[in-house]
Amino acid sequence: MKSVVDTSSSPFAKLWGLGMDQVRIEGGFWRARMDAIRRTSLPWQYEEIKRTGRLDNFLIAAGLKEGKVSPHLAGDSDVYKWVEAAACACWDNAEPELKARMDEVVAAIEKAQEPGGYINTTFTGARAGERWKDLIHGHEIYTGGHLIQAAVAHHRATGSRQLLNVAVKWADLAYRLFGPGERPGTCGHPEAEMALIELFRETGDRRCLELASLFIQRRGQQPPLVGGSPYLQDHAPIRLQTTPTGHAVRQLYLLSGLTDLFMESGDVSFMDTLRQQWRNLCAKKLAVTGGVGARYQGEAFGADYELPNRTCYNETCASIALAQWAWRMLLASGDAGCADVMERTLFNGALSGVSLDGRTFYYTNPLEHDGGEDLAGSHRGSCRRTSQHWDHTACCPPNIGRTLASMPGCLYGQSQGALWVHHYADSSATAQTAGARVQLRQRTEYPWDGQIEIRVEPEREAAFELRLRVPGWARGAQIAVNGQPAGAEARPGAYAILSRAWRPGDCVTLSLPMPVERLRAHPRVSCCHGRVALARGPVVYCLESADHPGGDLSQLALLKEAEISAGFEPDLLGGVVALRSQGVVMQGQQALYAPGAAPKAAAPADITAVPYFAWANRERGAMEVWIPEM
Amino acid sequence: MKSVVDTSSSPFAKLWGLGMDQVRIEGGFWRARMDAIRRTSLPWQYEEIKRTGRLDNFLIAAGLKEGKVSPHLAGDSDVYKWVEAAACACWDNAEPELKARMDEVVAAIEKAQEPGGYINTTFTGARAGERWKDLIHGHEIYTGGHLIQAAVAHHRATGSRQLLNVAVKWADLAYRLFGPGERPGTCGHPEAEMALIELFRETGDRRCLELASLFIQRRGQQPPLVGGSPYLQDHAPIRLQTTPTGHAVRQLYLLSGLTDLFMESGDVSFMDTLRQQWRNLCAKKLAVTGGVGARYQGEAFGADYELPNRTCYNETCASIALAQWAWRMLLASGDAGCADVMERTLFNGALSGVSLDGRTFYYTNPLEHDGGEDLAGSHRGSCRRTSQHWDHTACCPPNIGRTLASMPGCLYGQSQGALWVHHYADSSATAQTAGARVQLRQRTEYPWDGQIEIRVEPEREAAFELRLRVPGWARGAQIAVNGQPAGAEARPGAYAILSRAWRPGDCVTLSLPMPVERLRAHPRVSCCHGRVALARGPVVYCLESADHPGGDLSQLALLKEAEISAGFEPDLLGGVVALRSQGVVMQGQQALYAPGAAPKAAAPADITAVPYFAWANRERGAMEVWIPEM
Repeated sequence: MKSVVDTSSSPFAKLWGLGMDQVRIEGGFWRARMDAIRRTSLPWQYEEIKRTGRLDNFLIAAGLKEGKVSPHLAGDSDVYKWVEAAACACWDNAEPELKARMDEVVAAIEKAQEPGGYINTTFTGARAGERWKDLIHGHEIYTGGHLIQAAVAHHRATGSRQLLNVAVKWADLAYRLFGPGERPGTCGHPEAEMALIELFRETGDRRCLELASLFIQRRGQQPPLVGGSPYLQDHAPIRLQTTPTGHAVRQLYLLSGLTDLFMESGDVSFMDTLRQQWRNLCAKKLAVTGGVGARYQGEAFGADYELPNRTCYNETCASIALAQWAWRMLLASGDAGCADVMERTLFNGALSGVSLDGRTFYYTNPLEHDGGEDLAGSHRGSCRRTSQHWDHTACCPPNIGRTLASMPGCLYGQSQGALWVHHYADSSATAQTAGARVQLRQRTEYPWDGQIEIRVEPEREAAFELRLRVPGWARGAQIAVNGQPAGAEARPGAYAILSRAWRPGDCVTLSLPMPVERLRAHPRVSCCHGRVALARGPVVYCLESADHPGGDLSQLALLKEAEISAGFEPDLLGGVVALRSQGVVMQGQQALYAPGAAPKAAAPADITAVPYFAWANRERGAMEVWIPEM
Repeated sequence: MKSVVDTSSSPFAKLWGLGMDQVRIEGGFWRARMDAIRRTSLPWQYEEIKRTGRLDNFLIAAGLKEGKVSPHLAGDSDVYKWVEAAACACWDNAEPELKARMDEVVAAIEKAQEPGGYINTTFTGARAGERWKDLIHGHEIYTGGHLIQAAVAHHRATGSRQLLNVAVKWADLAYRLFGPGERPGTCGHPEAEMALIELFRETGDRRCLELASLFIQRRGQQPPLVGGSPYLQDHAPIRLQTTPTGHAVRQLYLLSGLTDLFMESGDVSFMDTLRQQWRNLCAKKLAVTGGVGARYQGEAFGADYELPNRTCYNETCASIALAQWAWRMLLASGDAGCADVMERTLFNGALSGVSLDGRTFYYTNPLEHDGGEDLAGSHRGSCRRTSQHWDHTACCPPNIGRTLASMPGCLYGQSQGALWVHHYADSSATAQTAGARVQLRQRTEYPWDGQIEIRVEPEREAAFELRLRVPGWARGAQIAVNGQPAGAEARPGAYAILSRAWRPGDCVTLSLPMPVERLRAHPRVSCCHGRVALARGPVVYCLESADHPGGDLSQLALLKEAEISAGFEPDLLGGVVALRSQGVVMQGQQALYAPGAAPKAAAPADITAVPYFAWANRERGAMEVWIPEM
């Protein structure tokens, strides 16, 4: 199947992603995560879809079942996200049982669509009269967007038009209602924009592109269509929205749609806006974990440098949305920095949203937790993931599901005369370039090891560029071809370009040094003063109580000059590289405020850091990303 | 006039405050602040009351003027607070013009009351049908509380029953509606509880006490009367509410009322609750400035140790409410620690709410500001006070007005056989004790100097205790009588007891050492790590851009070992003690996150710290209470 974002025909894209039918993740880090999703998360989420009435809702709407629909905010969209994930997972590794469940769900969806194209189980029965009345809060267009994304993935994975037809009919209806010259509506929650553009890419129906463009450009008009608020990105026309503002997921879905629109339209003023947004986000609004949306209130972006560790919201869905936007920015620009951001958020702030076993999920991803009980309104997240979301709004669990299930589609790219390797994973890829079929076989233990071997296997000698991303953190990277220095510049944060006539069996080795790094934050991120975050390669680390029994994590400090060793520990957290170093327990202060000299070391302490994404998979306890140094 | 809280007849109070008719602040720090309120704030606030229609509202409600009332949330309460401030100010230093304005306003209020006792201009005319319908949001009982407090102050200051009669009639109505056996209502915003108890103290009408008790004890019942939410302190019965929760002003007004109720009822379970609340607040929820209510969302208390510097809300009204509660806790317990908290908040987090000239006001009192523009939703307050509040909710400006105008009433206390000095100010006091009339004449430059001289002038020799508060920060305090060591223990955070037969002319000297202290925060206040707050005596300091031109405040650090000098600078900020020391500009980091060694000193820098309360009285710029140390 094609990647879930297919820009191979987009006139203003710099490249396109190799489809999932061209890529296979064969082992290693992402294989394990994808397997947990396929084997555990998706079957369990299917049960939740049934248990909470979300599936029955479609049957009730179809008149095939008695009863009242169970009310969930945009509950249909959870089902659509699950279908999208299932379609990708089935493609990647067909399991008859998952396929059967997907077929059952798709059939229910199909039956619920009305002849005119309308489908939304919330607004059926007694509430049918409310349709399209409250576009700000109703999530109707948003839900249609998820229907489209599920349908496109389903079509690409299975070849069946069963769900695609539903999406096309819905889009037809939306165009009749909101197209040019019709009601100037747009949704309170962006999402349908990128979906409609993907539907255009799948079907060629330009009306979808046109409608997406209207949905985007109607924002920020006078009089306001969406309440006029920055929270809903309705405070200014899209070209004048230059910093991430308001609800983080809404903002980033909107920017994803805008990037898609740029790739189709070539309107450079859109790219100007996107670059301003990007620069502000990366320089001032991004947690070191790739978390975004610092503020609980409104699940929203904070001001510049407002990046608290304890009270950050950093919704899993927002990190996913950032990955989606970064991916599109990469496709639109070819800038390796976009892949850097995507990698940072996927390995850390997004992946922390799901437990290692795939059973439990986070909405909120704080960078510091005191290990205390979950209290309503505590504004610190939880130190326990939960499986209970489906009784309420379930957005994050199926969102992380579809993200991980579609991973193969974003590892490799292609452009005229070039193959790109964006992300490193034990995998193989096949593409047609320079008139030849080329296979790439990548072997690596990434992210635990920076050694990457790529066998290039053209069916016959073929001249093309192989572009390898050198991550922004990778200083001193070296590239060899067949054991000889490749002569290509390996600048951190750029693609190294290997341009040659490739022969079958050519072997590229990329060595990314992975020292443990002590990251420091800009001085305006005032809560990180005197602290470091440990990172190795793309993985950001944290301290957990589980590795520091008997102590209070807030009193531990890392010694400034201490060596930090890194070693793979197969029995720790399913197998991770852990970091070990020397620190101290600082002299405690009991009073809230007290005069005196700076706290001194009271005792030495062994320090162990584990990957942030893997926190809260053991016993309850405190966690800290930014560690005091003394 | 009596103090605005008069516990002289409260059976379970440990002491009572000397009234404003017994105390005169003659010069020094608080005199200047009170003069700014009287000369500038109150006349200007009167104009605002007129300009915004708040005064006309009473005339319209009385049928004496045509038109529609102007809608302000609890707008009448702003007028009542102004009257309370004016009554105290007129007592303290009668100015005919202010007195005339007060008379005009009181007359308008009186006319607006209906024969049945109802008075609230919001619910007149077309909205009369909404009366008492929405006790959660309507602020009707709350507004009645402010009416009572204004009336009690007015009666005590002027002897006139004109406004007291209005309050008594309103309280009668409230008792008929909400008294025993009637509708079990209570207000969404506590305030009337302490007011009703003060009315009971003034009139002796026990129904007021009974109604206050009901208003308090109806909270947290099943089914909930106030929405059941912690935000409104309706989540548990009052005795089970053991930590400060929800909207800070509501919580602290409620605790003030509960403390009053304890002093009248002697119910020790109330005091248990109060002590638990007090301990949690002081140990885990109090900014170093005495600011409380750390969270923007809901203007609410955060969780334990959730004390951000940049995004704290710390409403001026919340600090005022804390001072009110601390004062009542002092009266109920005689614990000097209560006066410490009161002093901390009055000199810092409350006083920062008003500019030095009395013209502009803060709602929000952050501990760190980047000096940037005021943006909606910036969650960092402003680096400019404003005079524009009255167009919206005006609560803080008149609240700081009444607080400062009533200061004389909380300096001194009395109990059987003892006179207490709680707060140090250039002042005199007169009381009757041990059968003699005693005058105390206090001379001091406090808080700029810790030297305090108190002349004790009994009309004839009289044996009584003189209790002098030794502030919690005052280590090494010394007390002499007539030049000889007094032999009394001067323990920080306790009252030193001088028990003797006093003769006219006896001279007590209290020497409170005031070294500059580097305060450090508990390690769980993670944003203060590696930082110190400077304090000298009760005054907490901050850095401002105005004293550090050309640099970025966030890159300044204080040297760990540097001496810090303190000197009074008459031309700085109206005359303050400023602190001067040596620091460095730290090597800047441009990237949001970057690897590397700890930042080094790039250049030496002179550091100047000014009192926090006086910040933002010069040009726009950054401010920081917690200063990095290196």
